[in-house]
Amino acid sequence: MASTGNVELQAGLPDLSHHLSQEARDRLPNTMKVFLRTVEDASQLVSLANGDPHPTLYPISQIDYHIPDLTSLDSLSSWLDHSGATRKLSAFNGTGECALDLAVAMQYSTGLGLPVLRQRFSEINELLHSPRPCTQNVILTLGNADGMTKLYRLLGSPGDTFLVEEYSFCGLTNAPLAQGVKWQPIKIDHMGLIPEEMEGILSSWDEGSMGRRPHVLYCIPTGQNPTGATLPVERRRAIYAIAQKYDVIILEDDPYYFLQYKQETSVVSTESPGQVSPDVISRFVKGTVPSFLSLDVDGRVIRCDSVSKTFAPNMRLGWITCNQLFCRKLEILTDNSTQHPHGLGQSLMAEVLAPTGWGVDGYIRWIWAMRNEYGRRRNIFFDIFQREVGRHGYAAATLPTAGMFFWVKVNIEKHPKYHVNDVSPKYGPKTNAKGLLDELFGLCVARGVLVMPGALFAIQTPTGSSENHILDRPYFRMTFVGVDETIEKGVTLFGKALLEFFSA
Amino acid sequence: MASTGNVELQAGLPDLSHHLSQEARDRLPNTMKVFLRTVEDASQLVSLANGDPHPTLYPISQIDYHIPDLTSLDSLSSWLDHSGATRKLSAFNGTGECALDLAVAMQYSTGLGLPVLRQRFSEINELLHSPRPCTQNVILTLGNADGMTKLYRLLGSPGDTFLVEEYSFCGLTNAPLAQGVKWQPIKIDHMGLIPEEMEGILSSWDEGSMGRRPHVLYCIPTGQNPTGATLPVERRRAIYAIAQKYDVIILEDDPYYFLQYKQETSVVSTESPGQVSPDVISRFVKGTVPSFLSLDVDGRVIRCDSVSKTFAPNMRLGWITCNQLFCRKLEILTDNSTQHPHGLGQSLMAEVLAPTGWGVDGYIRWIWAMRNEYGRRRNIFFDIFQREVGRHGYAAATLPTAGMFFWVKVNIEKHPKYHVNDVSPKYGPKTNAKGLLDELFGLCVARGVLVMPGALFAIQTPTGSSENHILDRPYFRMTFVGVDETIEKGVTLFGKALLEFFSA
Repeated sequence: MASTGNVELQAGLPDLSHHLSQEARDRLPNTMKVFLRTVEDASQLVSLANGDPHPTLYPISQIDYHIPDLTSLDSLSSWLDHSGATRKLSAFNGTGECALDLAVAMQYSTGLGLPVLRQRFSEINELLHSPRPCTQNVILTLGNADGMTKLYRLLGSPGDTFLVEEYSFCGLTNAPLAQGVKWQPIKIDHMGLIPEEMEGILSSWDEGSMGRRPHVLYCIPTGQNPTGATLPVERRRAIYAIAQKYDVIILEDDPYYFLQYKQETSVVSTESPGQVSPDVISRFVKGTVPSFLSLDVDGRVIRCDSVSKTFAPNMRLGWITCNQLFCRKLEILTDNSTQHPHGLGQSLMAEVLAPTGWGVDGYIRWIWAMRNEYGRRRNIFFDIFQREVGRHGYAAATLPTAGMFFWVKVNIEKHPKYHVNDVSPKYGPKTNAKGLLDELFGLCVARGVLVMPGALFAIQTPTGSSENHILDRPYFRMTFVGVDETIEKGVTLFGKALLEFFSA
Repeated sequence: MASTGNVELQAGLPDLSHHLSQEARDRLPNTMKVFLRTVEDASQLVSLANGDPHPTLYPISQIDYHIPDLTSLDSLSSWLDHSGATRKLSAFNGTGECALDLAVAMQYSTGLGLPVLRQRFSEINELLHSPRPCTQNVILTLGNADGMTKLYRLLGSPGDTFLVEEYSFCGLTNAPLAQGVKWQPIKIDHMGLIPEEMEGILSSWDEGSMGRRPHVLYCIPTGQNPTGATLPVERRRAIYAIAQKYDVIILEDDPYYFLQYKQETSVVSTESPGQVSPDVISRFVKGTVPSFLSLDVDGRVIRCDSVSKTFAPNMRLGWITCNQLFCRKLEILTDNSTQHPHGLGQSLMAEVLAPTGWGVDGYIRWIWAMRNEYGRRRNIFFDIFQREVGRHGYAAATLPTAGMFFWVKVNIEKHPKYHVNDVSPKYGPKTNAKGLLDELFGLCVARGVLVMPGALFAIQTPTGSSENHILDRPYFRMTFVGVDETIEKGVTLFGKALLEFFSA
């Protein structure tokens, strides 16, 4: 093993420490924790050291979590209408058997998170992404927003430019701007980021005029937000090879990994969580596109997973998988900011994922059934969209194979007031589309439906200009995860507003 | 109301926006959230906007929290030995009455935290700190470490120097160093920070040679960590006046506020949580030193509270109280980093603090009883310390009136090997104490007891030197919050090690 400072590099992996930000290099571990590690057999001593309230003083003796009983639940819909069977998982504070005692869960711990839960997430990693050099290096997060913004601090120095799809999740592309990181958008198509475009940017980058060549790619590979695109495995391989060639770290933000659907809309699986066969995990893996993590041989992929979309958004719990050096630096950052994730979330997920709960395979079975339900809603959305919108020819959408969103393109050039202002050789026509799209959005609201203008997700070039005319492009993001009635009503209202708009 | 950018200043309060860091000024709110606010009556529309999983799909229908039954609990000790009566508070996902429905708690929300819990914490503020201009401006945190490190980002620009007690909690003094903030230590005595020393530093600050004059004071006013000191109200008033004179923001880190004890050790209250009289809150307030928040007329105090010491450490839940501008900027930072705190903790505390749970007064009654218990342990520690350590004359400790720690001074000059190397006019003698103290620490470990060397908490001067000889000063931090047996054994072992050390 080579060494960088006090952190060991993993055997056989390249040294990627030059990617760390100045701040990450300067950040010192918590003095007390470092000191206590130097004391041999500290746990054997009578300790007057730390001001940790004793667990007997926590005013909580037990927590019961009521979750679906997978073995008797005959269908997901019985859960949705509150008639489904439940089972109770209980966690105790020193007074009973459970996967993670509350006396441990509710005490101070380490920035990495508690071993019992990290172990479960490692298992999930190895089952779904194959064992790879880094699949066992897991640090808990408060969900992907927390994880990703910590990664910006880990890797981003003022003046850096990061790569990103030209439309991306604005909640996370907004975050690093204030710390002095800029974005370089990469062109996309209906399959997501175009590898040749990425290579073109990197190969022609002029550090003299443009600053440090991008050393980080932020990417949502599956069911991308907002475009719904899922990168095919060939593109992932190509992107990974480019990342190796130009020494780029890939931030794989993959909250929709678990929500991947079949291409065809005709066949809808109705398997209930209880009926799914025992080989659920291998079937699940077969139905997914391999992750960047599963292609990673260098330790240059940093993957963010979350239970937000599979359990509940405000669980605020997830995990990062990455090389040991980055993992250690993230632990130090966590000790110096948020601290370890909350004990309640760790308790709940530890009980759910334990063999005494659902177990990891039960969790995947639940996701399987939930994904079928989302797939059904996607199909409903698509049918209604074709009927109410598509057939008029004023807008179109491709079928997403993952995630939660349709990316709807309005054929704005058919509008009577549309005109081209001028044409740039590099970016094509500059039009009056933005104003028209604002009008259309206003009309939608007036008619009672809220959709998300694509411009909200547009990445401006590093100079902050919109020379790429991205704000003129006619897209709306629409979700299909609502209940059937919302989809039916919402898409119908959008169709009506669109007809009215084009007949103006 | 005056205005700074898009945030309103509170009427009658000075504009303190110049304290914001460059990063905080540059940080933009989440584009989507800003956009949605511009849409009138958005909540009335059929929404295809956000990818929020529907609450009926959360695999959790109910959570039961088993907490002490305050009305029938005859003593805290019955809770400690697991024989105390419990009651069950249940939260439901759309299927029952509770203070905070899980359908709301577990969904995405705002960086501020959910209104129902913020309202409870505001109530606590107003009951304990009197209504003041800012007591209603509450934003939830993940505990004081999260809160304080967010405040460093809010106020600290590279090159800034912040003021701090010369010994302080290293977990939090370490954190801002990597972002380029330095510390200027202020001399303390057994009552904590000395106001005249603070004024001396500010009045003689030379911006030409030392950079920007400190505009922030980080302070643990009650049961200070590590020294155990509690600032008397006169000092708090003096410090606040100096902060006004020199335009300093006070970061009031007050996790031990709820753990304040009587000066005398002879009388120990044995009131059980169920026996405490109905006027508990006014009695509680009478027994505490007024907070900086309760003295604040300008909005220059930013107070961090937490349930870590009163409920359980890994609740990772607390709140910041401050002026509206800072509160809004913290919300933007939260939206751009951790996101709102986890739903489970908000659910638990909302049920506990609701009238259907303990209510706010029940929470204070619980704290009252717990504080009595900690007070009892403090007295036990002090008795054993006097018997096993104090009477030999090699070490002494003053009685803390708050918090969790004794600050033990070793009379190192009595050691046969002690000698003075040289004397600086400003800082006094430079000695070989550090080496001797390391020896003593090693001896303690060898004899089976772990104590915390004071040097771990020492603040070096901004130049990073130890010209103030602080590492030579002979202190150990010892906690009294363990169970009786730990205190008895630990202090006895320390006494033996000390005797052995001095007879070497």
